[in-house]
Amino acid sequence: MGEGGLLEIINLSNPIFKGYIFYSALLILKVLAMAILTGFQRFKNMVFVNPEDAAVFKCKPKIDANVERVRRAHLNDLENIPIFFVAGFGYMLTNPPVRTALMLFKIFTIARFLHSLVYAVVKVPQPARGLAWGTGYCITGFMAVKTLLHFL
Amino acid sequence: MGEGGLLEIINLSNPIFKGYIFYSALLILKVLAMAILTGFQRFKNMVFVNPEDAAVFKCKPKIDANVERVRRAHLNDLENIPIFFVAGFGYMLTNPPVRTALMLFKIFTIARFLHSLVYAVVKVPQPARGLAWGTGYCITGFMAVKTLLHFL
Amino acid sequence: MGEGGLLEIINLSNPIFKGYIFYSALLILKVLAMAILTGFQRFKNMVFVNPEDAAVFKCKPKIDANVERVRRAHLNDLENIPIFFVAGFGYMLTNPPVRTALMLFKIFTIARFLHSLVYAVVKVPQPARGLAWGTGYCITGFMAVKTLLHFL
Repeated sequence: MGEGGLLEIINLSNPIFKGYIFYSALLILKVLAMAILTGFQRFKNMVFVNPEDAAVFKCKPKIDANVERVRRAHLNDLENIPIFFVAGFGYMLTNPPVRTALMLFKIFTIARFLHSLVYAVVKVPQPARGLAWGTGYCITGFMAVKTLLHFL
Repeated sequence: MGEGGLLEIINLSNPIFKGYIFYSALLILKVLAMAILTGFQRFKNMVFVNPEDAAVFKCKPKIDANVERVRRAHLNDLENIPIFFVAGFGYMLTNPPVRTALMLFKIFTIARFLHSLVYAVVKVPQPARGLAWGTGYCITGFMAVKTLLHFL
Repeated sequence: MGEGGLLEIINLSNPIFKGYIFYSALLILKVLAMAILTGFQRFKNMVFVNPEDAAVFKCKPKIDANVERVRRAHLNDLENIPIFFVAGFGYMLTNPPVRTALMLFKIFTIARFLHSLVYAVVKVPQPARGLAWGTGYCITGFMAVKTLLHFL
């Protein structure tokens, strides 16, 4: 690997690095979609939390279960996705097998899409949401532990 | 670009990379400012959510509209700024025109400052907040889509 | 530093870069632990916010002070840790002294662990939480300002 040899990892012909960027972009679009979903629920149920927004539609600020559900799904993204970006970056630097790394990035991405789907789009009974969440959680944890041990 | 050629992008003489780091630092300071704003509203209105904080000022834990407003602005930052950091990084790797990339970073940064300003400092009627939020949202979305298509 | 000379900074034999990755991994595990803590409080107090979760345990959705406390600690992580990752990365590029940089990464990490501990595990009276939070806050601010001035 030469001194440091980071260029063999962080370069545009390394499939792991390309996969990392690709799945990150997909996850960003997923997070962005949560705002659309929240807006959709707000307009559908005419529920606004800011007085100035409610005033536009001549209604009072209030709280609504459907809006709150989407907001919880969004918050769950914020709890899990930014740390995945950093965990995935650190994990790449541990020189993992290409196949394993790409598989983990892909499964994490699918799990997070499913999480939002069963939480905020089609309400699916538990353990659907728990499994989707747990899959992403374990992958981030695995990557962080691998990174920690490698850089100890 | 040679094999991978990431060094032509991620290096300290590339104006895009320097701009990326510069605007990221500005955005971080903006997010940090939200905590000061929240603290300011808490003390001004003597509103604390933790019993141990309220006890210090001999008042009861309660909820206040001004504090909640700043907290929503802060949360909106968390929903939009960390994913921008990653989207901007991916976008840089697609070899965008220098002028376009710097413009997008700059507009995003201005939009987010304006968003906090009209949301939590001087209450400006809609669509001010919506426009500021939408501008940042579209830029992150554009960068993520560009990145996705480039690394497909 | 040659043209850009990023390789002298971002490489696996630079102790600052290795420290950055190491403490980032530790912080990720800390954030992940917050979800476990929340789950623990939910089961201990039988408090669930989603009707489908409450239904599993035959109780009604409700709000609980212990659960909310852990959730606020978690949210505080989201407000502070992702921006630290970016601030720390920018700061590395300013060529800081090795000793200072590693010290700042380490103190930030310890401060965030202590913050969660005194907020959500063992309730310690103020100013314990304020000091832990303020330490992390000042470090992120210092790094962002340093980066800003360097890339101005």
